[in-house]
This record gives sequence, structure tokens and C-alpha cells, in this order.
Amino acid sequence: MQKKAIILLSGGLDSITVLAIARQQGYQCYALSFDYGQRHNAELDAAQSIAKQYQVSEHRIFKLGLDVFGGSALTDASIEVPSTQQKGIPVTYVPARNTIFLSFAMAWAEVLNAHNIFIGVNAVDYSGYPDCRPEFISAFQQLADVATKASVEGEGFKIHTPLIELSKAEIIRKGISLDVNYQQTVSCYSADSQGRACNHCEACILRKEGFIKVGIEDPTRYQ
Amino acid sequence: MQKKAIILLSGGLDSITVLAIARQQGYQCYALSFDYGQRHNAELDAAQSIAKQYQVSEHRIFKLGLDVFGGSALTDASIEVPSTQQKGIPVTYVPARNTIFLSFAMAWAEVLNAHNIFIGVNAVDYSGYPDCRPEFISAFQQLADVATKASVEGEGFKIHTPLIELSKAEIIRKGISLDVNYQQTVSCYSADSQGRACNHCEACILRKEGFIKVGIEDPTRYQ
Repeated sequence: MQKKAIILLSGGLDSITVLAIARQQGYQCYALSFDYGQRHNAELDAAQSIAKQYQVSEHRIFKLGLDVFGGSALTDASIEVPSTQQKGIPVTYVPARNTIFLSFAMAWAEVLNAHNIFIGVNAVDYSGYPDCRPEFISAFQQLADVATKASVEGEGFKIHTPLIELSKAEIIRKGISLDVNYQQTVSCYSADSQGRACNHCEACILRKEGFIKVGIEDPTRYQ
Repeated sequence: MQKKAIILLSGGLDSITVLAIARQQGYQCYALSFDYGQRHNAELDAAQSIAKQYQVSEHRIFKLGLDVFGGSALTDASIEVPSTQQKGIPVTYVPARNTIFLSFAMAWAEVLNAHNIFIGVNAVDYSGYPDCRPEFISAFQQLADVATKASVEGEGFKIHTPLIELSKAEIIRKGISLDVNYQQTVSCYSADSQGRACNHCEACILRKEGFIKVGIEDPTRYQ
């Protein structure tokens, strides 16, 4: 029987690559996205079209409303998205986001009797978010080892982070080798309603530099 | 300045005791409840009246809809709530519930600049849930130490579990000493719309035995 995996699918460059990797590794894929009060829906539109293209067994979009917590430029309209890269943890950091995302993935995995969770964090060309680091993933893995019925009585869960040690250029190279079409992905923090990127926020800059390093044409649709 | 604390408030016997303890310890209390597709709303009604009585600084009820995941007698109408205590992890277990609750508490704490989170888990007279055990809390504490901006750059979070080593009778004794009124709390898995208890589910049995051991009249309102 094919092994099941939950794939956290944001609709960005990293998560589509993770989905392609999980599929190549033979997993039956279940995609999980979150509608958490992001500034735009273009990312979720992209996630839906990617899930369809990859024919995942099921795609759930979970409405969270983290915007009630505020505290991030991505969910709080009163904080401006910066147009250049910043030092330290940027204002686009969303409080406890990956902890919450992985917790839901674990809940769904337990119900599906799935034992694998894929998340596209990476700690090389990244934005400095604390919940993208190997020490965070390792701590979540230890939590997953004791937190649920499946952890105690069953096979438990393995958190897969196939991109964690890759640079943005290496991620793109990996994706290209798996025929990933990056044109449909949205990484930009300020994409317009058609998913076209702003070309100057930190997410755009990291992505653009990746394509330049790989030496292929940037397929991103800009505003 | 008064220290802020988030209190996970279900509306049951344990969580009101935790709120009373946190207040006695001098914390400025913020109550967090979840509407996660429970079978009845009596618990949430109780949480609201308790939050009001204790004059918490803010009470948030977060709508989660864990019922879409199913897999538990508490959220899935197709699974019957058992009328007697069971061996092992019971069907009233909700996948990853406390992991999700603590993740949201941590997110809200970070936004509020609070560094203390109180949860009323206990591992003595409990229902066998894996996410009520000390090893779970200790793993979540380790996660909290690396997961957020506040963990990395600030004071971080302390998870408080003042009931974890207490029996139900000891919890009740502690609450009585703090003038807790248990009549308004709802522990029953099958309470009616007025919050009256069924008197035979495992939650009712544990609670009733607690009052008998303490030797005081059971204030619970039964159906």
C-alpha cells in the first residue's frame, strides 16, 4: 500500500518543490493549506491550482484567522510590508505560524492514519524566521514523538524537511529536475489579485536571486 | 507591572481552578477558549461566565472547527460517547488537541508580550490522554524555547501546569481553598444545553469521585 503524506502547501516556490519531491518518493499526497488572514488570496489560488495539477488525494484549506492575533506585517494591515531585506527577524514573521501549521498537519495525519508530514522550511537563503530552523524542526519532531495517540500506540510521525539545507538556487535546480513549473507559484508578500509579484519585497528578492544563480530565465509574473 | 498570563479555559473543573491559581499568584489573566466542534456549547457558556466572574483582561473564543478532522467521540457525531470508563486511550481523545491549543496560546502570548501560559492538564485521575502527560508538557516547553521570535530574542514562554501532579480530589481541595464555585463548571462530555451533566460518562465519574473523596457535597447540576 502506498504510504500517505501530508504536504504543507502554501502555493509558493518552496512548497511546490516539496510536493514534487514527496510524489517522486512515492507518497500518496494530501495537501494542507491555511487561510490565515494573509493580505492577498493569490497564494491560496496558486495552492489550489498546484494541488489539482499534482492530483493530490485531498486538498484542505483550513481557515484560521490568525489576523485576530495581529503582530505581523503579513496579517496586520497596520504594519507595512518592508520593500527591502532587513536584519534580524523581519516584521513579516507571523507569531508561532509553523508551530500551528505543523500541529494541524499532525491532527489531520492522525485521522488519516498517515505518518509523514512534509514542510518546505529552509534555513539557508531564508528570511530569518525562528520556526524555519533545524532546532525548531527537531523540537517539533520530539513533541510529535509523545503528543498523540499515534505517537504512543502507533507508528508516530516523521517530519520531513527536504529543503532545509538547500539554498534557493539549489531548491530551484531540484524542482527543475522534477519538471516543476514555477510560473504558477506565488512567493511575493504583496502579490496582486492575479498573483503577480511586486519585485522588491524580501521574498521576491530571494526568489529572483535564486533564478539568477541557477542561470535560467525567471518565470515569475511581475506587476 | 503585573505579569501577563494566558489561561486555557475550557469551562471545566480543572481550568477554573487553574485560573484561580494564576490570579492568586498575581498574574494579569487573559483567557483563551476554543470552539472546536464540541458536541455541546454548555462548556463554552461556562467559560464565558467564569471569565466574566474572574474579570479577566480579555477572553477570546477561537473557532477552530476540528470537527472536519473527526476521529473523536467529542467532535464526530458518528462515534458514540462511552458511558463507562475505558482502558487505554479513550475514543474521547481529540487528535493533537493540546498541541493545537498550546500553539495558539503561544501565538497570542507573543502578540500580547506575555510570557506565561497556564494549562490545566493533570496526569493522576485523568482520562489517559497522551497530551496531558508530563513528557508532553516538557516536549512542548522545549519547542516553545526555540519556536518564536520571543523565544529567540526575548524572554520566551513558561508553560505552567499547576495541576499536573494532583488527583481530582486534591484539585477540588485547592479550588475550595481559593473560593472556586464549581457549580458553574461543566466537565461532562454529554451535557445538555443548560450545562447539566449526564452523571455516567468518564468525565462525570472522575469528577464525582473527586467530590466524594474530598467529602463535600457534589455541586454538579445533573440532568
